[in-house]
Amino acid sequence: MTGVSEDDSVTLEGLKKKMAEFAKERDWDQFHSPRNLLLALVGEVGELSEIFQWKGEVPKGLPDWKEEEIIHLGEELSDVLLYLIRLSDICGVDLGKAALRKVELNAIKYPAKLFEDSSKKQNHFKNTTTTDGIDIIDHSSESA
Amino acid sequence: MTGVSEDDSVTLEGLKKKMAEFAKERDWDQFHSPRNLLLALVGEVGELSEIFQWKGEVPKGLPDWKEEEIIHLGEELSDVLLYLIRLSDICGVDLGKAALRKVELNAIKYPAKLFEDSSKKQNHFKNTTTTDGIDIIDHSSESA
Amino acid sequence: MTGVSEDDSVTLEGLKKKMAEFAKERDWDQFHSPRNLLLALVGEVGELSEIFQWKGEVPKGLPDWKEEEIIHLGEELSDVLLYLIRLSDICGVDLGKAALRKVELNAIKYPAKLFEDSSKKQNHFKNTTTTDGIDIIDHSSESA
Amino acid sequence: MTGVSEDDSVTLEGLKKKMAEFAKERDWDQFHSPRNLLLALVGEVGELSEIFQWKGEVPKGLPDWKEEEIIHLGEELSDVLLYLIRLSDICGVDLGKAALRKVELNAIKYPAKLFEDSSKKQNHFKNTTTTDGIDIIDHSSESA
Repeated sequence: MTGVSEDDSVTLEGLKKKMAEFAKERDWDQFHSPRNLLLALVGEVGELSEIFQWKGEVPKGLPDWKEEEIIHLGEELSDVLLYLIRLSDICGVDLGKAALRKVELNAIKYPAKLFEDSSKKQNHFKNTTTTDGIDIIDHSSESA
Repeated sequence: MTGVSEDDSVTLEGLKKKMAEFAKERDWDQFHSPRNLLLALVGEVGELSEIFQWKGEVPKGLPDWKEEEIIHLGEELSDVLLYLIRLSDICGVDLGKAALRKVELNAIKYPAKLFEDSSKKQNHFKNTTTTDGIDIIDHSSESA
Repeated sequence: MTGVSEDDSVTLEGLKKKMAEFAKERDWDQFHSPRNLLLALVGEVGELSEIFQWKGEVPKGLPDWKEEEIIHLGEELSDVLLYLIRLSDICGVDLGKAALRKVELNAIKYPAKLFEDSSKKQNHFKNTTTTDGIDIIDHSSESA
Repeated sequence: MTGVSEDDSVTLEGLKKKMAEFAKERDWDQFHSPRNLLLALVGEVGELSEIFQWKGEVPKGLPDWKEEEIIHLGEELSDVLLYLIRLSDICGVDLGKAALRKVELNAIKYPAKLFEDSSKKQNHFKNTTTTDGIDIIDHSSESA
C-alpha cells in the first residue's frame, strides 16, 4: 500500500485508507459516526493511562520496562492513533494537513528566540509550582 | 522537510522530527516526560470532546458545521496527534511501525469474511442494546 | 458508618473515610499519589465511555438497556466517583465544600432569569451548529 | 437544602437535586442527554489533567501549591463531580447506592488480610515495572 512500504514512510493518508477499507470489509461504517468514534478514542486513552497509572514518574525511553510492556504500550498508542485518524476521516478533516498547519501556528505562537533566553525561568518553574510568568501559560496551551 | 512536502505524504516520522526539533529549540525537553505528555494528551482529548459535547449526534462529514468550527476541530485533532507522536517518541516507541502491526493484528482478530455474513446481527445490535452476541464484544474491543 | 446508613444520605465525607480506610488496610497509600490517582481516574472514564461508544445517541433513563448493563454502568460511574473522592482527599481538597461553592459560582455566572427568556434561541442552537450567541458559550463553559 | 447544611454532610442526593433544579430553571434539560453529559465530563477531566500536566510528580497534600492553584483545582474536581452526578441522574442510576455497593465488592475482591502480608512484594512493584505478580493486576483493576 502506498506510503506504508517502509516504516519510516508510514503516512497518515495510508493509514486512513487502511482504516476505511477495514471498516468497509466488515460493514462497520454504520457504527463509525463521529461521536461513536470519539468515545472509542476516549476509551483507548483510558487504556493508555492504565499502563502508566501506578508507576509514579517514569524516565524517558522507559529503560526498566519489560519488552512485553513496551509492546503493550505500542498497541495502546496505536489504538489511539487509529481511532484519531478514523475520526478525522469521518469528520472530513485532512489530519496531515491540519497537523502541519498547527505546527506552523505553534511556531508563531512560541517563537524559539523567546525561549532560548528563559531557561533559567523555566528551571524555576520546574522546581516549584508557581503559576506566575509566561512558562506555565505557554505550556498549558502548548500543543506540541 | 522529508515526508511533508505534499499533504498526502505527511508521515509520522516527519511529524516526530518536527516535534523533537520544536521542543529542542525552546528548551522544552525538560518538560516532556512520559507522564507529563500523557496528561497533556488527556487535556487535548478533553478539548476535542468539548467541541462535540452539546451537539447531540452529528452526521458524518459534519455538513451543517461552519468553516470556523471545522478549522477549530482540525486544530484539536492535531493537538491530540502531535502529543501522541511526541509521547511515543519519548517512550521510544516507533508509532508508525506499531500502528501497522496493530492493523495486521486487528485483521486477524476480526476476519472480514466473518462479518460479511453477520450484517443482520449487526443491524440488530444497532437498534437495541443487547450485550449478548459477538457484535458488542467485537466493537468494544475493536481498535480500529 | 456516619452518613451512609441510608442511601439518600450517602455523603462525600463518608465515602472519603471508607476509601482512606480501605487503602490503609491494604497498604495502598504508597500508590495513591496525586498523579497516579488522576491517571487511574482517566482509566475509569475510559471504561465508562466504552459502555456508550457504539450505541449512538441514547435516551434519558436508558429505557432499552438490560438490567445487567445498568448495573455495569453503575459500577463504572462509581469507579470514577471513588477515584475522584480519593484524589481530592490526597490533594487536601474538601470536595463537598468545593462542589457547593462551584454550584453557587455557576448560579452567579448563569442567572436563571437570563435563560428563561432565551428558550427560543436555545432551541435554535440545538437544531443547528452555530457558534454565535450566548448559548454555546454558556454550555461549553458550564460546569453543571 | 437538605443534606448540604454542613460541609461534612454534603450528600450525593443533595447535589443531584441541586443540579436538577439548576438545569430546569435554565431550560437546560434539553441539552442534558447521556452522551452529551458524558462528553462534558470528559472535557472537565481534560481540564483537571491540564492542572497537573507540566508538574512532574507532586507530593500528597500539594504543599508547594499556591492557594489560588488549590482553589482552581477544587473547581475542576467539582466540575467532574457535578457532571458525574448529573449523568448518573439522567441515566437513572442511584450513584450513592452504586458507590456503596462497589466499595463492598472491592472489599471482597481485595481482602485486607491478603495485602497485609504482601508489603514486601508491593515495594518491589513500586521500584520496578514488572507486571508479574498480583500487585499490578490488583491495582490496574482496583476502583478505590
